[in-house]
Amino acid sequence: MESAHAAREDGRRHRADGERSRQAILAAAAELATIEGLDGLSIARLAEHVGMSKSGVFAHFRSKEELQLATVDAAREIYDREVSEPALQAPEGLPRLEAALEAFLVHLERRVFPAGCFFLSAASELEVKHGPVRDHLRAHYAELLDGFAETVRQAQERGELDPEADTQQIVFELDSFLIGANIALFFFGDESATDRARAALRGTLERLKPAQPA
Amino acid sequence: MESAHAAREDGRRHRADGERSRQAILAAAAELATIEGLDGLSIARLAEHVGMSKSGVFAHFRSKEELQLATVDAAREIYDREVSEPALQAPEGLPRLEAALEAFLVHLERRVFPAGCFFLSAASELEVKHGPVRDHLRAHYAELLDGFAETVRQAQERGELDPEADTQQIVFELDSFLIGANIALFFFGDESATDRARAALRGTLERLKPAQPA
Repeated sequence: MESAHAAREDGRRHRADGERSRQAILAAAAELATIEGLDGLSIARLAEHVGMSKSGVFAHFRSKEELQLATVDAAREIYDREVSEPALQAPEGLPRLEAALEAFLVHLERRVFPAGCFFLSAASELEVKHGPVRDHLRAHYAELLDGFAETVRQAQERGELDPEADTQQIVFELDSFLIGANIALFFFGDESATDRARAALRGTLERLKPAQPA
Repeated sequence: MESAHAAREDGRRHRADGERSRQAILAAAAELATIEGLDGLSIARLAEHVGMSKSGVFAHFRSKEELQLATVDAAREIYDREVSEPALQAPEGLPRLEAALEAFLVHLERRVFPAGCFFLSAASELEVKHGPVRDHLRAHYAELLDGFAETVRQAQERGELDPEADTQQIVFELDSFLIGANIALFFFGDESATDRARAALRGTLERLKPAQPA
């Protein structure tokens, strides 16, 4: 019994180690993918980057495609932890929308991913490369945008933003400022980009607030 | 004399053929770069794409880097022909600014480059890849943005847009809508993206127009 218990413990520890190491490899993969591109992410290149043997990485991911798909999932977990979840702490409606926009800009400023938003980088890269990796990325990205649209809609339903305004048009405009900040900050190194985006976002939200009753 | 003349004519024709073929190769290179990335553009890959021998392409470009630099120049020529020059036909000031914004959106809709704006694709790709190709791309992109800022400034100086407004903030906001349209159209295949951008641009310009004297 003792040894069976010890063996089970040992097995659990091995699985936990394996899982930890898988997560560590994937975090490095997400980072590497924003710099060198998701399509360039191969088992050989990643093994070199994390200082492991190819067979060590291959034990976790059996193919380049499996690695790429898992990297997109890992990037989503990082994004949720850094952007989506902090925003959910704010009360539903306009405060949550403002918190989500701010959390996104802060994640750019903090270089959570070294080359800016993971999803935006990968989307630009895979724009016309059809295949399972692009589809998987697009599904995640669409989910993030749907969540964003839902947050805008809640603020409209509460009357904090004009309920008559076109939700998708609001999402397009707010999202454009986030994307614009990403490009200006990471391609041009323009450190004022996130504050320009803040001013633009504030102006847009102000205009959408219903006039106060006199 | 006759034969010397014929030889000169022949030489000219050869040079003209060479130049034409170089231009044709570069147009194909610019197209390929927006799909597969500028960094992936090698002499071997381009030769395969245009159906030439490697040595045939090599005769025009001695290295991958020379090819990439020439491709950025070729993309700029295409961009100027399709976007910058048509806008210059409009009178200076607000009409020219509106023409430039519209020409950009039309160049997306017409798929002048098959994966959207060449400069935006390449900028996203090369965000953190330092080197001469990135520097060259950044110089062209910065020149385009400077021209855009100058057009905004002219509209402000003529009083067609609020002269007190921060020119760089206006440029950031207008450019963000163009970038947002590019991502939505080419990554999500959202055909309404350019019209969303048109509505956003119109709203922004309307707000910047000084109030009409009563």
